[in-house]
Amino acid sequence: MSQFFSIKTPVKFEGAGTANPLAFRHYDAKKTIGGKSLAEHLRFTVCYWHSFTWTGSDPFGGPTIERPWIGAGDQMALAKQKADVAFDMFTVLGAPYFSFHDRDIAPEGATLAESNKNVSVIAEIFAKKMQATGVKLLWGTANMFSHRRFMAGAATNPDPDVFAWCAAQVKHAMDVTHQLGGENYVMWGGREGYESLLNTDLKRELAQAGRFLQMAVDYKHKIGFKGPILIEPKPQEPTKHQYDYDVGNVYGFLKANGVEKDVKVNIEQNHAMLAKHSFEHEIELALALGIFGSLDINRGDNQVGWDTDQFAMNVPEMVLAFYPIVKAGGFTTGGLNFDAKIRRQSLDADDLLHGHIGSMDACARAWEIATTMAADGTLEKHVAARYAGWDKPENKQMLDGKTTLADIAARVAKNEPNPQPRSCKQEYLENLINRYM
Amino acid sequence: MSQFFSIKTPVKFEGAGTANPLAFRHYDAKKTIGGKSLAEHLRFTVCYWHSFTWTGSDPFGGPTIERPWIGAGDQMALAKQKADVAFDMFTVLGAPYFSFHDRDIAPEGATLAESNKNVSVIAEIFAKKMQATGVKLLWGTANMFSHRRFMAGAATNPDPDVFAWCAAQVKHAMDVTHQLGGENYVMWGGREGYESLLNTDLKRELAQAGRFLQMAVDYKHKIGFKGPILIEPKPQEPTKHQYDYDVGNVYGFLKANGVEKDVKVNIEQNHAMLAKHSFEHEIELALALGIFGSLDINRGDNQVGWDTDQFAMNVPEMVLAFYPIVKAGGFTTGGLNFDAKIRRQSLDADDLLHGHIGSMDACARAWEIATTMAADGTLEKHVAARYAGWDKPENKQMLDGKTTLADIAARVAKNEPNPQPRSCKQEYLENLINRYM
Amino acid sequence: MSQFFSIKTPVKFEGAGTANPLAFRHYDAKKTIGGKSLAEHLRFTVCYWHSFTWTGSDPFGGPTIERPWIGAGDQMALAKQKADVAFDMFTVLGAPYFSFHDRDIAPEGATLAESNKNVSVIAEIFAKKMQATGVKLLWGTANMFSHRRFMAGAATNPDPDVFAWCAAQVKHAMDVTHQLGGENYVMWGGREGYESLLNTDLKRELAQAGRFLQMAVDYKHKIGFKGPILIEPKPQEPTKHQYDYDVGNVYGFLKANGVEKDVKVNIEQNHAMLAKHSFEHEIELALALGIFGSLDINRGDNQVGWDTDQFAMNVPEMVLAFYPIVKAGGFTTGGLNFDAKIRRQSLDADDLLHGHIGSMDACARAWEIATTMAADGTLEKHVAARYAGWDKPENKQMLDGKTTLADIAARVAKNEPNPQPRSCKQEYLENLINRYM
Amino acid sequence: MSQFFSIKTPVKFEGAGTANPLAFRHYDAKKTIGGKSLAEHLRFTVCYWHSFTWTGSDPFGGPTIERPWIGAGDQMALAKQKADVAFDMFTVLGAPYFSFHDRDIAPEGATLAESNKNVSVIAEIFAKKMQATGVKLLWGTANMFSHRRFMAGAATNPDPDVFAWCAAQVKHAMDVTHQLGGENYVMWGGREGYESLLNTDLKRELAQAGRFLQMAVDYKHKIGFKGPILIEPKPQEPTKHQYDYDVGNVYGFLKANGVEKDVKVNIEQNHAMLAKHSFEHEIELALALGIFGSLDINRGDNQVGWDTDQFAMNVPEMVLAFYPIVKAGGFTTGGLNFDAKIRRQSLDADDLLHGHIGSMDACARAWEIATTMAADGTLEKHVAARYAGWDKPENKQMLDGKTTLADIAARVAKNEPNPQPRSCKQEYLENLINRYM
Repeated sequence: MSQFFSIKTPVKFEGAGTANPLAFRHYDAKKTIGGKSLAEHLRFTVCYWHSFTWTGSDPFGGPTIERPWIGAGDQMALAKQKADVAFDMFTVLGAPYFSFHDRDIAPEGATLAESNKNVSVIAEIFAKKMQATGVKLLWGTANMFSHRRFMAGAATNPDPDVFAWCAAQVKHAMDVTHQLGGENYVMWGGREGYESLLNTDLKRELAQAGRFLQMAVDYKHKIGFKGPILIEPKPQEPTKHQYDYDVGNVYGFLKANGVEKDVKVNIEQNHAMLAKHSFEHEIELALALGIFGSLDINRGDNQVGWDTDQFAMNVPEMVLAFYPIVKAGGFTTGGLNFDAKIRRQSLDADDLLHGHIGSMDACARAWEIATTMAADGTLEKHVAARYAGWDKPENKQMLDGKTTLADIAARVAKNEPNPQPRSCKQEYLENLINRYM
Repeated sequence: MSQFFSIKTPVKFEGAGTANPLAFRHYDAKKTIGGKSLAEHLRFTVCYWHSFTWTGSDPFGGPTIERPWIGAGDQMALAKQKADVAFDMFTVLGAPYFSFHDRDIAPEGATLAESNKNVSVIAEIFAKKMQATGVKLLWGTANMFSHRRFMAGAATNPDPDVFAWCAAQVKHAMDVTHQLGGENYVMWGGREGYESLLNTDLKRELAQAGRFLQMAVDYKHKIGFKGPILIEPKPQEPTKHQYDYDVGNVYGFLKANGVEKDVKVNIEQNHAMLAKHSFEHEIELALALGIFGSLDINRGDNQVGWDTDQFAMNVPEMVLAFYPIVKAGGFTTGGLNFDAKIRRQSLDADDLLHGHIGSMDACARAWEIATTMAADGTLEKHVAARYAGWDKPENKQMLDGKTTLADIAARVAKNEPNPQPRSCKQEYLENLINRYM
Repeated sequence: MSQFFSIKTPVKFEGAGTANPLAFRHYDAKKTIGGKSLAEHLRFTVCYWHSFTWTGSDPFGGPTIERPWIGAGDQMALAKQKADVAFDMFTVLGAPYFSFHDRDIAPEGATLAESNKNVSVIAEIFAKKMQATGVKLLWGTANMFSHRRFMAGAATNPDPDVFAWCAAQVKHAMDVTHQLGGENYVMWGGREGYESLLNTDLKRELAQAGRFLQMAVDYKHKIGFKGPILIEPKPQEPTKHQYDYDVGNVYGFLKANGVEKDVKVNIEQNHAMLAKHSFEHEIELALALGIFGSLDINRGDNQVGWDTDQFAMNVPEMVLAFYPIVKAGGFTTGGLNFDAKIRRQSLDADDLLHGHIGSMDACARAWEIATTMAADGTLEKHVAARYAGWDKPENKQMLDGKTTLADIAARVAKNEPNPQPRSCKQEYLENLINRYM
Repeated sequence: MSQFFSIKTPVKFEGAGTANPLAFRHYDAKKTIGGKSLAEHLRFTVCYWHSFTWTGSDPFGGPTIERPWIGAGDQMALAKQKADVAFDMFTVLGAPYFSFHDRDIAPEGATLAESNKNVSVIAEIFAKKMQATGVKLLWGTANMFSHRRFMAGAATNPDPDVFAWCAAQVKHAMDVTHQLGGENYVMWGGREGYESLLNTDLKRELAQAGRFLQMAVDYKHKIGFKGPILIEPKPQEPTKHQYDYDVGNVYGFLKANGVEKDVKVNIEQNHAMLAKHSFEHEIELALALGIFGSLDINRGDNQVGWDTDQFAMNVPEMVLAFYPIVKAGGFTTGGLNFDAKIRRQSLDADDLLHGHIGSMDACARAWEIATTMAADGTLEKHVAARYAGWDKPENKQMLDGKTTLADIAARVAKNEPNPQPRSCKQEYLENLINRYM
């Protein structure tokens, strides 16, 4: 075990009364609900990028966070050192999963072949560490947004050589993800969008992106990768406007390209709010459309207009997000991926632990509350009662695919209904759910 | 001609030098561009609701704008008086089109049958006035959001009787629109959304909305209505969240319900910006997806978070919106519908004229500039050059539907491309287009 | 007791385990903390406008909420009926305070004199009811925004007759508030701003507003009114831009007019967020500037851009707002005014109770948690430690008003400090405060 | 002349008809308006930071823009090379002014003394170049936000050593600015704010900032610096919340510290909009409060929530911003500082020229239009007429400082005014000003 953190042994569950800041107060991994442990329900995933590559730079200032594995020197040796600390942290936190971009784990080489080789070398190390620790891979992905070659897009680049580069890079990242038993493969279109429509052929770029995605789906099947490809909606940042704007936009894109069976969405709270949706809206919509995949669990700042990726700590808000997932039976291949970073001023190694521990506790509380709400059923009964009129055969019939506008108009002419609005009981329900919090 | 406005004769084109505020300075209806008159290109449409039913109420104050046809009395007589002034205004402005909701033109009756009858009576009057003046109907629609029966939705209402009511109401509105030779039929989902997910079955409501739309499409075909149905995207307001959030969300909804051939979008500047898109983004996306229909031309306020529906006056901004439409060949069934209202403090009758005249002038300037930009081709050439690499056969091949990720990866392994980013020239292009402004 | 609500007796505290939706689960009015009861700490105030005059109209739809006292008929008789129900509700809720605008309680008359007389008649009734029930007046105010005469401003109106009208109206509202023992007098500048700078003389309007406020302060002293005048910051809505934008803008305005000793702020959560501040920011700033007065307790919707005035239900968020107030010793003349309204679809009489009860419970929990956090002192100790360097005399000296830049520069030249950043511990602290939640 | 740009000679005014992208089409520096040349009116200022230090990094990607003077090597030699190109660019553009932060022009040294010395060395070079070219310094400032020592604030830092450091750094930057004949000294509080209130003592930090500013004012007088200190309002970014939120907040801060005579504001379009104000609002407010200083001329993106600092190109929008300045007599010590950067994808050296030339042209057009509007006086007459009632002695008297609420109420009781609202004519005015565009 490295000397990076102040503790060397796994964080323990000590219960709500503990004063130990490096203990879980709510997350008891082994506690079972409905026959599954909390660990199995929540599928906590530590991400590599924010945890191990973030140096605190912002648009107005340079690095603040110093790491022994970041800086000049033999980059592969540093990458190995980083992997040691990473698996230490997974173990200390008791996180069953991790996730990564290819460039997070290994340095860019002089050529793509060299970069790919670097990734494979580290992946070998990962394989051994995964076996040793039992930590699994929730998903892998390719970073096609940081290097300047991607500045004008990855699959949507005006330069076909970049498109080709990305195809080769994604192939390798999918291969590696598959080798490591990854349960999903993620695509985040950070540069798939535009800065200005003046120099952009939007229709052509959408076609490029569509074909790229189809090829990725085909390749997944070819190599026998069972998990879904996940697209992560985001409206903007780094580009002014990204094509994968939100769940509804992504769904239209999947349908247009005929890949809605193989591709699902990885929804992030901070991305949802930047598109002016609530987190729970995006989740419910994805569930309704049959494309719900996984969550990036973090929070944005309601007063600012950019991605802050903070650790999620507000339990009542998370209950609203988890409740539809619980009702739908919980995660399948997805999980709770901590796409969250410590603040720029959080310089201490242990700050990484505080962020994760605090949010794991908050998630555990929220999941338990959501489970109780779902099991209790009071809320759901209220909703069902609101739509109960649709259970009558003559009403159900209106949606049967055969009844026409004219049929219904005739019925209305005959019956002369005068529908009276009923209270939506929103305050009652808000009060009701506060009982569970 | 009524005594409502200070002038009784059509507003004339007097050229940029005129000091007459009730003259056109740029909109010369008969001026031809590419064989079509400006009137034929722009297809200006005066809307009934903002022009003739708006009283200036806001969430913190009552009516400010007084109209002789609004108030107590015989509501049908007042509706006829309103129609007289409306057609006077269409004539004074020289607007070739108008648009309306059923409830704008005729009062709500005691029953739906009575309401429908009221609409039909006024529609008869319209038919005569249309013949007399040559004014045509761009589109009609049904108001399914103002009355309290719709507070929880129209087609998405938990109460099936409201769904039935709406089916009957839309049938009648489509019939009337068809009788009057309307060139499109519009649906605006003002209440198709939710205030709170706590009491909402989102999946069920989407299914209701989808079936409703399918029935409307079927009915359109049944009665031989040739124009498209238009859906108007809007993210929110009056509801907290509307399903028809933006063009991309609507497209997904159309695809899910198999109606993308028969339904297009009516895009509004102010709605685009409330969803954090630019107007031109929504237009370009709709064009790319093959669902561009028509425009609600107005503007929002960049400092506030709600729909202000102001008359559009900023020429450079409108050029960006019109340019892709001009390139695509202009409007077919759509047009420029003034979904714009005078300010709450604009109490004078002539203020209605000032708003329309000013915006018609601004639109005409913008359309002419966009036409010049498109004809000149400098901008388009620059864009084409940016993607020119895709013209090479070996690159085009990557999108041919047969080439696989592995094929491309093999090619990359062989060729070792090292793509170099090229300047996007955004400042050059922004400067370039300012030359046309 | 009227038959308006389903219950006729005061809502009881039944504890967290109760299933009774019309019982308090956390708000135990008589429970004492630090020698004061929760009722004395929280000073709950029911507002007249949202509770008794709101009909559910929104910019796209008419009234939904029906009240026996709203409609045609003898308006003074209806106002008396409204007062009966209002005091019933205060009693049922056990709210110690209420608040009102003049026009909430009595109808507009044909002249200002008649309007004022109507207000006085109802105030007489209030006086008796207050004596009978023990309910007190937190504050009164004048509605100078609903009537069309105020459309272009109240004190900032271009028409001096409106200014004069407002002076007379405010004088009367202050008199009535004083007669009823009101503990504060509030001014909300709903129309003190502009729709367009094109027709606005901003400097002149600010001068009008400044003089108006000075006169109000003088009048307060003249009549012996002891409480403060409160200004309620809000950035916009109903106007496009209001002068009382936020706490910092109001402070500048008070200083410019020399009234910062007599005027404080009434801060609202939803107004804070519309100006892109957190609620706690506005509270802390007001406390730091010495102008903290009272709170309008509600919540906005983070996904929409207008005032939703919903009942506040999120306990962790409220803890952050209450904590600085608790540390500062709690309210003096201010309190928790429920400037919150039921949703447009909440049609039942009891919905008014559900909203208030739920939020009173949430406030009580939050206040208790904030009190525990303050008493515990862990958080405050952490903050103090962060600034501890300033306790050294040589550092304190830098702020003594005599030391100059040159002095300090000399010291730096001599000592060559190389200050090292220290972790801000944000995640640790967020996790810490979740322990109290 | 360096070989950096494609042209070596000053950009010429060639008139609107030119097709030369490296010529001015509207900005004719010598053209006089009212006895002053356009150069004297507009006082164009090229900023050092965006022009010469920006490498295109964003939160999701590394540098894209490569400059010969950025990279490894002798940093002072590179700084000199940078200065050569900078003065070449000032000359090519014909910009009469430049502006800089200390760290833009010279590298950080091992100690503050060394850093200061580096600045002085480059300043010596500047002095010679300024004499040779005639280029002047609009303002200098100190960068107290990029280095990690400032991560928790500069003057508001919890660590008094940082406060001391900043005092010494500002003293030196003021000295250098004074030596170079700078006409203003600017303070931008990029880190003067907080990331979280949990670890912040807001009151204490405001006191630190206030005293710091007082010392800077005193020092200015001590060294005989005649120009104002300018504070640049900004609501957020890099911090979550900055104290210098907007013009109104800054004014309150100046009043609280008694420095409103010596400190003015430098207003930026993009900062105004991030605080949800229009640019012209902030300008008009500053003029009304007597603290208008200078402008950072750029534009933000209305669809995104962060600072984009793009070159301003929309003429009608700029007219609205310039109009109040023109009416107030134009700039005194301030000017139009191009705090604007080329896009991340604008890799070519000439892109720097395109951005500046395009915006200089747009500014020149806008200034001329604003001048015409002001000279014409039609708009101003309309505004004056709106407030004309205040010219009557009995109305003016209401603002005389002696008249009381009771006096006015008595007058109202006697006269029974019934003020009638008048149309605000907003559409007429919007249409009117479009005549000038």
